[in-house]
Amino acid sequence: MSKEPRYSRRSRTPPGAPPGTLSVDPEARATRVHSFRFSPDGVEEKEGLLPVEEGQVLWLNVDGLGDHKMLSHIAATFGLHPLAMEDVVSVHQRPKAEEYEAHHFIVLRMPDRGAAQLATEQVAIFLGDGYVITFQEKPGDVFDPVRARLRNPVGQMRKRGADYLCYALIDALIDAYFPVVEQLGDQLETLEDDIVFQTGEVEMGQIHAHKRELMSVRSAVWPMRDVVATLQREEIQRFSDNTRLYLRDVQDHTVQLIETIQTYREIATGLVDLLLSSQANKSNEVMQVLTLIATIFIPLTFIVGVYGMNFDYMPELHWKWSYPIVMALMAIMALALTYWFHRKGWLWSKPRR
Amino acid sequence: MSKEPRYSRRSRTPPGAPPGTLSVDPEARATRVHSFRFSPDGVEEKEGLLPVEEGQVLWLNVDGLGDHKMLSHIAATFGLHPLAMEDVVSVHQRPKAEEYEAHHFIVLRMPDRGAAQLATEQVAIFLGDGYVITFQEKPGDVFDPVRARLRNPVGQMRKRGADYLCYALIDALIDAYFPVVEQLGDQLETLEDDIVFQTGEVEMGQIHAHKRELMSVRSAVWPMRDVVATLQREEIQRFSDNTRLYLRDVQDHTVQLIETIQTYREIATGLVDLLLSSQANKSNEVMQVLTLIATIFIPLTFIVGVYGMNFDYMPELHWKWSYPIVMALMAIMALALTYWFHRKGWLWSKPRR
Amino acid sequence: MSKEPRYSRRSRTPPGAPPGTLSVDPEARATRVHSFRFSPDGVEEKEGLLPVEEGQVLWLNVDGLGDHKMLSHIAATFGLHPLAMEDVVSVHQRPKAEEYEAHHFIVLRMPDRGAAQLATEQVAIFLGDGYVITFQEKPGDVFDPVRARLRNPVGQMRKRGADYLCYALIDALIDAYFPVVEQLGDQLETLEDDIVFQTGEVEMGQIHAHKRELMSVRSAVWPMRDVVATLQREEIQRFSDNTRLYLRDVQDHTVQLIETIQTYREIATGLVDLLLSSQANKSNEVMQVLTLIATIFIPLTFIVGVYGMNFDYMPELHWKWSYPIVMALMAIMALALTYWFHRKGWLWSKPRR
Amino acid sequence: MSKEPRYSRRSRTPPGAPPGTLSVDPEARATRVHSFRFSPDGVEEKEGLLPVEEGQVLWLNVDGLGDHKMLSHIAATFGLHPLAMEDVVSVHQRPKAEEYEAHHFIVLRMPDRGAAQLATEQVAIFLGDGYVITFQEKPGDVFDPVRARLRNPVGQMRKRGADYLCYALIDALIDAYFPVVEQLGDQLETLEDDIVFQTGEVEMGQIHAHKRELMSVRSAVWPMRDVVATLQREEIQRFSDNTRLYLRDVQDHTVQLIETIQTYREIATGLVDLLLSSQANKSNEVMQVLTLIATIFIPLTFIVGVYGMNFDYMPELHWKWSYPIVMALMAIMALALTYWFHRKGWLWSKPRR
Amino acid sequence: MSKEPRYSRRSRTPPGAPPGTLSVDPEARATRVHSFRFSPDGVEEKEGLLPVEEGQVLWLNVDGLGDHKMLSHIAATFGLHPLAMEDVVSVHQRPKAEEYEAHHFIVLRMPDRGAAQLATEQVAIFLGDGYVITFQEKPGDVFDPVRARLRNPVGQMRKRGADYLCYALIDALIDAYFPVVEQLGDQLETLEDDIVFQTGEVEMGQIHAHKRELMSVRSAVWPMRDVVATLQREEIQRFSDNTRLYLRDVQDHTVQLIETIQTYREIATGLVDLLLSSQANKSNEVMQVLTLIATIFIPLTFIVGVYGMNFDYMPELHWKWSYPIVMALMAIMALALTYWFHRKGWLWSKPRR
Repeated sequence: MSKEPRYSRRSRTPPGAPPGTLSVDPEARATRVHSFRFSPDGVEEKEGLLPVEEGQVLWLNVDGLGDHKMLSHIAATFGLHPLAMEDVVSVHQRPKAEEYEAHHFIVLRMPDRGAAQLATEQVAIFLGDGYVITFQEKPGDVFDPVRARLRNPVGQMRKRGADYLCYALIDALIDAYFPVVEQLGDQLETLEDDIVFQTGEVEMGQIHAHKRELMSVRSAVWPMRDVVATLQREEIQRFSDNTRLYLRDVQDHTVQLIETIQTYREIATGLVDLLLSSQANKSNEVMQVLTLIATIFIPLTFIVGVYGMNFDYMPELHWKWSYPIVMALMAIMALALTYWFHRKGWLWSKPRR
Repeated sequence: MSKEPRYSRRSRTPPGAPPGTLSVDPEARATRVHSFRFSPDGVEEKEGLLPVEEGQVLWLNVDGLGDHKMLSHIAATFGLHPLAMEDVVSVHQRPKAEEYEAHHFIVLRMPDRGAAQLATEQVAIFLGDGYVITFQEKPGDVFDPVRARLRNPVGQMRKRGADYLCYALIDALIDAYFPVVEQLGDQLETLEDDIVFQTGEVEMGQIHAHKRELMSVRSAVWPMRDVVATLQREEIQRFSDNTRLYLRDVQDHTVQLIETIQTYREIATGLVDLLLSSQANKSNEVMQVLTLIATIFIPLTFIVGVYGMNFDYMPELHWKWSYPIVMALMAIMALALTYWFHRKGWLWSKPRR
Repeated sequence: MSKEPRYSRRSRTPPGAPPGTLSVDPEARATRVHSFRFSPDGVEEKEGLLPVEEGQVLWLNVDGLGDHKMLSHIAATFGLHPLAMEDVVSVHQRPKAEEYEAHHFIVLRMPDRGAAQLATEQVAIFLGDGYVITFQEKPGDVFDPVRARLRNPVGQMRKRGADYLCYALIDALIDAYFPVVEQLGDQLETLEDDIVFQTGEVEMGQIHAHKRELMSVRSAVWPMRDVVATLQREEIQRFSDNTRLYLRDVQDHTVQLIETIQTYREIATGLVDLLLSSQANKSNEVMQVLTLIATIFIPLTFIVGVYGMNFDYMPELHWKWSYPIVMALMAIMALALTYWFHRKGWLWSKPRR
Repeated sequence: MSKEPRYSRRSRTPPGAPPGTLSVDPEARATRVHSFRFSPDGVEEKEGLLPVEEGQVLWLNVDGLGDHKMLSHIAATFGLHPLAMEDVVSVHQRPKAEEYEAHHFIVLRMPDRGAAQLATEQVAIFLGDGYVITFQEKPGDVFDPVRARLRNPVGQMRKRGADYLCYALIDALIDAYFPVVEQLGDQLETLEDDIVFQTGEVEMGQIHAHKRELMSVRSAVWPMRDVVATLQREEIQRFSDNTRLYLRDVQDHTVQLIETIQTYREIATGLVDLLLSSQANKSNEVMQVLTLIATIFIPLTFIVGVYGMNFDYMPELHWKWSYPIVMALMAIMALALTYWFHRKGWLWSKPRR
Repeated sequence: MSKEPRYSRRSRTPPGAPPGTLSVDPEARATRVHSFRFSPDGVEEKEGLLPVEEGQVLWLNVDGLGDHKMLSHIAATFGLHPLAMEDVVSVHQRPKAEEYEAHHFIVLRMPDRGAAQLATEQVAIFLGDGYVITFQEKPGDVFDPVRARLRNPVGQMRKRGADYLCYALIDALIDAYFPVVEQLGDQLETLEDDIVFQTGEVEMGQIHAHKRELMSVRSAVWPMRDVVATLQREEIQRFSDNTRLYLRDVQDHTVQLIETIQTYREIATGLVDLLLSSQANKSNEVMQVLTLIATIFIPLTFIVGVYGMNFDYMPELHWKWSYPIVMALMAIMALALTYWFHRKGWLWSKPRR
């Protein structure tokens, strides 16, 4: 059904290779590096690597994880820990934040806007002294607002350090989930209206698929709350007090996302009851029609059958008024039963509110 | 279905603008400022801004968040933090309490009495040295009791500080949820009675809608417990020991609200079972009628069919008493079956208690 | 359905009155005060107030909360805190224990034995230096065992302090829930037997009502665990080490009550499945009867219909043995089908164990 | 249904008697005391009391709680706390461990092997300096392995202290639950197989009864985890470091029991769905038979009815080949419908895997 | 159904034997010992025991727990604690990590790849000074990657200590669960597709069996999270800071496994609703066919019955056009009803999306 990659799948180290081995997935895309280096004085952009420079902040944005040589080169240049690099190329990690001596290592998942179906893509962030390195699976991401702010000559962003850049990237990533969750909420409301007002045919499979999408977003967002909390709360030297204030803001948004998802899950669970009840209603309606028709006509058919019998001695067969009297009696019976069904409320299915 | 604004919707900073930017929603209402300034000696009211004065407490009540200039002016005058101001104009925040250097920042949600449907409106409160500033989306709020107490010349409220004013506002806001929750409880009992005593036709959609309203109130009230707990427990200098005693009281009320909502949710979940069972009962009843009629008349129809056959050699057709005997036998059969159904309890649907 | 007062209802301070105002409910009962004053030497009882005396323990038992003057007088005499007194007259409080400077304030709920339906009544207890004051809504309570022990000249109770008296009252109150919960357990077993052994007609509404009563008891008992834990654990000077040992005993009983209620709730939830399954069984049974009759007789009716046709050329109509042969064939068909149904197990509804 | 004593029932102190009163249940069994006194040098057994002796460990095993004088005598001799003694004779206590000055007091529940139905019996253990006293409701217990080890001249047990004896008793008691839980697991698998492979008729009542038994075991075992954890973790002087190592082992077993019970409860919950689905399947099957027969024969009966009409002008009645043609057409119709049902998969109920 | 050994079964010490007795299961397999001894200089392998040597790391891999003498010999040689050895031969332990003075003792469960059905096998690991000893029930395990790395002359593993070897074994064991869980996920998707797209017949029993397998994996994996957390977090001297970094990585994988299992369980729960709804749909479909046919033909059969009556005075019987008119009217009735059913949407079962 949903074809998104599952977390359980691990394209990790081949058997016999020790943990910490950088084993590039042969199907991964070609690696493309884009550098930003900025200081309050200006910003320098380049396709390819720029070196770290004193008093400047470097953002290395790496797309595609297929080039083993390039990845090894970057890892060696910046002293990225082998265990972290292994997680970078193994793209089904759970979001997490880990402190290494030389750098902080953060794994997040961003919503994949390109996909037809709801999917998430892994983003690995290294925050070191004066640099931020981000690794993504494919080109196309949610960081354009950050790029725009960096390129804006009057923006305040160039005056901040690498920790603020790191915060800005996380903030942009979390913000990108809001339209996704909103869309799920809209779908939920459509399903709800279709069931309640019978404006459309809803099947359990649709509710189930919706719940799976909610689970998928939740499993991406849920651990990010801990990630942001870890970055903010711990006495981590890499984040200034001011940036920590901004991280608190990001955490608020993450909690808000999680609560919204939780609420949607509860609503979706309610839709299951709604649909089962609607099916039971429909079943009742069908049965009422059947019962109505059968209850009226089966006895009448019996009566006409009586007078279809071929006994020699059936005096009423020869009476002149038998036929109209029998017909009239049957009409009265039918009317009486119809009235009784009307009283029981079976005759007309109630209009929905 | 429910058209209230969802938390997930964020009318926040446009892409490229940094966090902390005050981006006023173009559809927001015009801003209206009302000032109260009081000391034990008296109270001064004014449409518009009054300055803070030594030994006096200022309450700035701001309605409507559409006037960028005015909001910026207030923020600059009182030194309100940009991140907090951003939350003020982004009206779908989750309740929270944040400590900044210059002031405390509290976001709450109050029930919107004007709305036809259950809705909540964001209230942002700044508590600083000698002032309280409240921002609301629209005019009309739940603070009239506080205003009445301030205007009351013999009331004790003028003798208290800004922290007590802040407490009084929170207290009034929490209290405003009690009638809302009570009304939800009344609706729940009506639904319950309608199902159990069949005094009305209840559909799953109604229970579902009720559960959604409970969720909506809960998502507004639930985080306020933490907010009040934070204000009360932490060694916060802005609240005096005495006011903290009063905050403990507010927290009791919040917990009481949450437990009531929780109980209502459990009851609503029970109503789902109740309704499904009632549908199954109805289905059984319909089926019993059908079975009753069919079981009695289908065999009889067969019998009369037998004597409707046109075989040349059917001796009983020519006997004189055949007709009355067959009719009598069929009557006995019908009565026997009816008695059997009576014994099985299918004949009469039991009256409900 | 259940008409007991809900927690959400707050007959509190009228709008404009500050918190801590003693606003007596005009419908409350007349106030009646009964005093016990005891020391190891003896006990003194009086309708009305007795003063505190050095070396003696005073128990003031106040029934009915309608006399504003009397309540104010007691509050002033003993220095009871206004916030606590406000909770005394607002009789829908959640159980809680609060420490004030001059006294401890404990709110509990006792089962109301007088009521036809399960209800709880608020009891407020003040424990100060040498005195215990209890406030109840109406006369009639669960404290008679305590009174009996006080009046017993050889009882040990007179030798203990106010803290032990306070413990004894709490203990008596918790103990009063045991018969209530036991009765709920008996009702549950009756429902269970009625469904399983079909000894009675059970409807979902009864299970639902039972669950509501369990919820009602739980919401009264649940917070009392915290209350007793607070009194026992905190380094509270008012309770001696020995009394604290007794409080530990009370807490055991509270936990036992809560676990029993929790178990009953799970059983009640199981009853829902039981009843739904029993309804489905009944539905199957009805349908089996219908199918049995219809499947046997509808084909037979077709056959007799065939020989009721009026075609000129139907040779078998003129054969001598046609009629008995057709009748015999139909009998064989009916028997074969009946045997088939017997094999499928539809013929006889199984007897219940 | 289940007739085991419920926890809620408290045969406690009569009204007016203070807590800590030893009120023996008049229906309790006669008291029988068995003493073990051992040291590394040997073991001494006696029906009746043996005194504590320096350098020896005494185990007093008391069966039956009906002899007030004997119980009081033991309590006085060993200085057992009145509150603890009250719990000893009140046999529906929740498992717990309490520290008193003179001794540790432990209440456990052991499975009652003698009972036809699953039941638990209270065991109260006092651990003091050089002695262990156990009180049980009736003779017959799970401590025979411990007795065997004590009587074994080459066993190591005689060399250990009272704390190790206490551990050994708890260990034997917990171990006695494993066969009980295993039997519940076997019953669960039988139920499961009976539903899935239709090897037996299962009713919801059986699953419900099974869930109740699981709940009953759980409510006995669950608090014992805390009991063992308390004994092991707290800096309790009475247990040596070595015995504490053994207690850790007991706790592992308790956790294992609880997890197994929890798993069984989940499986039992799944059985509910399984049974409901199986009922729905059966209902579908019945309905398919009915629909099959009715859909084939009702139209045919109509057709033969048409040619049973007595109109004077029905030309086809006089045609020579009408009868065989009509019969052939009806046969084709019946075959076509049967084929259609075959295609829809309604014709043959699928064989179960 | 599932025939894997249950945790509850304890093949432990026979009654009367003290805890800590090494009681070998008579059905256990013959014991086979394989030794690895390595240092940065090389590796030595041997079928049988190698002694510990200064500066070298020894890995003793023991298969089969049937040889009491050999097990006792190993225990004596390395000073393994009796309580731990008892757990080694009792193969239904819950995963746990325990610290003894001479060594660490870790119990884990590895997936049993050989079994037809999902099963787990116990692995006990002792980590001491310079040695790791692993005990398994049968030959065949998940440690081949570790062996390959040890045998690899240029691998880094020989340079590490016993703690790293211990980590590598745990890592290999946890990794072995990923394909197992992935397979469960694939099965779940097949079930899901079969229900939603009706590509296969799914029965509740299959979903139930799947849930049981998930429970089985969960009960093996769940406690391993605590095990790894204990090893990593506690200030345990046996693990170097570097190895602790690697253990953090293992814990990430364990958490990932648990979350995946949890998600699968939620999906499986959703499948229950899906299947019940699909059954209800099928039931509705069957009923619609029945109602359609019965509602159309039962009234028609009544009409033809009317004209099959044998009254002498039925004028329309003698009219020339009666027969075609009645036939036409009946055709119109049938068409009208068919159209009405078409409008109600009962005529054609909707194609599934």
